[in-house]
Amino acid sequence: MIYFDNSATTIAKPPEVAEAVLYAINNFGNASRSFYDAALLANREIFKTRAEISELVGLDEPLNVAFTCSATESLNLVIAGLIKKGDSVITTVTEHNSVLRPLYLAGCDLDFIDCDDEGVLRLDEIEKLIKPSTRFLVCTHGSNVTGNITDVKRIYEICKSHNITMILDISQTFGLIDVTFDMADILCFTGHKGLFGPQGTGGIIVNGSFDFDIVKTGGAGVKSFERFQQKEMPDIFEAGTHNSHGIYGLQKGVQFIKKIGTGAIHLKERKLAERFYTGIKNLKGITLYGDFSGYDRLPVISVNLEGMTSADLATSLWENYEIATRAGSHCAPLLHKRFNTVDMGMVRFSFSYFNTYEEIDICICALKNIAGY
Amino acid sequence: MIYFDNSATTIAKPPEVAEAVLYAINNFGNASRSFYDAALLANREIFKTRAEISELVGLDEPLNVAFTCSATESLNLVIAGLIKKGDSVITTVTEHNSVLRPLYLAGCDLDFIDCDDEGVLRLDEIEKLIKPSTRFLVCTHGSNVTGNITDVKRIYEICKSHNITMILDISQTFGLIDVTFDMADILCFTGHKGLFGPQGTGGIIVNGSFDFDIVKTGGAGVKSFERFQQKEMPDIFEAGTHNSHGIYGLQKGVQFIKKIGTGAIHLKERKLAERFYTGIKNLKGITLYGDFSGYDRLPVISVNLEGMTSADLATSLWENYEIATRAGSHCAPLLHKRFNTVDMGMVRFSFSYFNTYEEIDICICALKNIAGY
Repeated sequence: MIYFDNSATTIAKPPEVAEAVLYAINNFGNASRSFYDAALLANREIFKTRAEISELVGLDEPLNVAFTCSATESLNLVIAGLIKKGDSVITTVTEHNSVLRPLYLAGCDLDFIDCDDEGVLRLDEIEKLIKPSTRFLVCTHGSNVTGNITDVKRIYEICKSHNITMILDISQTFGLIDVTFDMADILCFTGHKGLFGPQGTGGIIVNGSFDFDIVKTGGAGVKSFERFQQKEMPDIFEAGTHNSHGIYGLQKGVQFIKKIGTGAIHLKERKLAERFYTGIKNLKGITLYGDFSGYDRLPVISVNLEGMTSADLATSLWENYEIATRAGSHCAPLLHKRFNTVDMGMVRFSFSYFNTYEEIDICICALKNIAGY
Repeated sequence: MIYFDNSATTIAKPPEVAEAVLYAINNFGNASRSFYDAALLANREIFKTRAEISELVGLDEPLNVAFTCSATESLNLVIAGLIKKGDSVITTVTEHNSVLRPLYLAGCDLDFIDCDDEGVLRLDEIEKLIKPSTRFLVCTHGSNVTGNITDVKRIYEICKSHNITMILDISQTFGLIDVTFDMADILCFTGHKGLFGPQGTGGIIVNGSFDFDIVKTGGAGVKSFERFQQKEMPDIFEAGTHNSHGIYGLQKGVQFIKKIGTGAIHLKERKLAERFYTGIKNLKGITLYGDFSGYDRLPVISVNLEGMTSADLATSLWENYEIATRAGSHCAPLLHKRFNTVDMGMVRFSFSYFNTYEEIDICICALKNIAGY
């Protein structure tokens, strides 16, 4: 198999990730619940993972990192914890349903930053969308459809000048490019994509303190006689038993990224994506979606071939070449409406540090064959 | 280490559990997101796990099993999804905070079934607690503190006769004794205790259909253009990427339980607990909490030794004998108030199928030494 669906989940991971999970399953107790070695071991490794992740975003505050089971859970907890019915909130037309649906559920008043024909957000229009009642801006750092990276530092500057709290979805960027706290107040991340962790991991990183309402509650191993668990980070988001097995695996993924460096990872992935782009951009009948003008892109390229639905193309790639891609609508409904691809979808190729140039070349050949060259 | 904290999490697991997780991390794609083999493999194994769990409770409805990351998440989603502010709800004084706190958060009108001095619930009093407005009863199947198993079939009969929906927390019983749908309408379970699965797994099993409100929402890989994900089981509870790695491990745990049989598991665990009980019940200064009169108990024994706090006793057991237990309040605040153990807590010994009689005997000796024999 040639695996080009790394935006959905990474399968090729540093071997130490799975080894760590194996070790944890056989050796970790329930973290924060007791003081014998196996429980303390789990507790210590969870803390160390917080520290590694905190450091990766340039923060020296391990306890500002809370663990959840996914970016979706992170976004749900943060949005439901902060945003109330009727609050005015700005978001964008490029968002994934993991951002849009929790916002719809919150019942807030939504304003959308639009994008151009290449999916680039019209940041000039943000100021016009801001009302006196606007208190939050929620957006994604990099698009899972176009691979465009948004200039979130610029958005955050605008937010700060209007006392707007900015929540950033870093599902597609964390581990691939630098993510820092000059980009937002609150970061929501997943563990199983660019961080190379296991599925079932994710989290929330905050810079500063926020008055989150409790959304999910239960036992926490401390202050058992109070009606709710602690409101401080990270307890506010961590009711119930930790997934310490998964978190320990995630720690190894994060350490791998630090060892290689996001600069080197981005460079390798850019070279793969650039080679692919150069090989296919002039194919007859191909449409590419996104802004390919700059260096700062994710290794994500979505296309359609004239005369085929995205499902047909992805099926042909899989059935005839064992190339795994993703067809369909990629959970980003507003962007597909913007691109008029609601019915046909797109075929997305998303690369990882562990892909090879040879795989890229095979895929270019396959697309040429399918296009009738 | 002699590990007697199996009610918190099981560490000794069938080896195939960790092996399955290792395999899944290196081979599974994102389930439900595409149709290449790695994605379908994950999807198929998740479905198979649903089927195994459904079968374990005597239900032939795999899609009635939804996966969450913990029993705490399950209880939060079910309680917030069904119970509204002002609803009248019956629960018990023996509940864990994973039941109590979501009920407090829901803002419902709560009535509590009391217990006697051995922690046995006064089921005769239920009828008196039922008001015309009572629509839900939420309780636990087996106490994580006393090891008492509640006659939930009797409670469910009462519920059915009053059109009350019964939600059962099976965190302590699933995998250890039979759990069936003549006990409740909705079951909330964890994966990492009696089912021997990895941490980060759990779920919800329903018998029939219920009108759950959406509590957690996001991408689901299907119907991306609707404002929310599907309201049907299991989608209603499963926004975001599955923890397919953990779920595959859980499948192996469930298969192990089916192979051995809950009857044989219960017998072995009862023998361990009975041997321990017999060995310590007459120690000078010991207090045991719970009803030890019958066969149907969980392998959980909580004690105090006169003149020591629970923390002192558990520390002594760990420091001098490498016996891992749990001290403190076990996240069951109302029961500790009932037993007057708020300050001193209790030391809990909880056994598993993988413990040995030799370990029990060593622990009895240790307690005798500490008690000054």
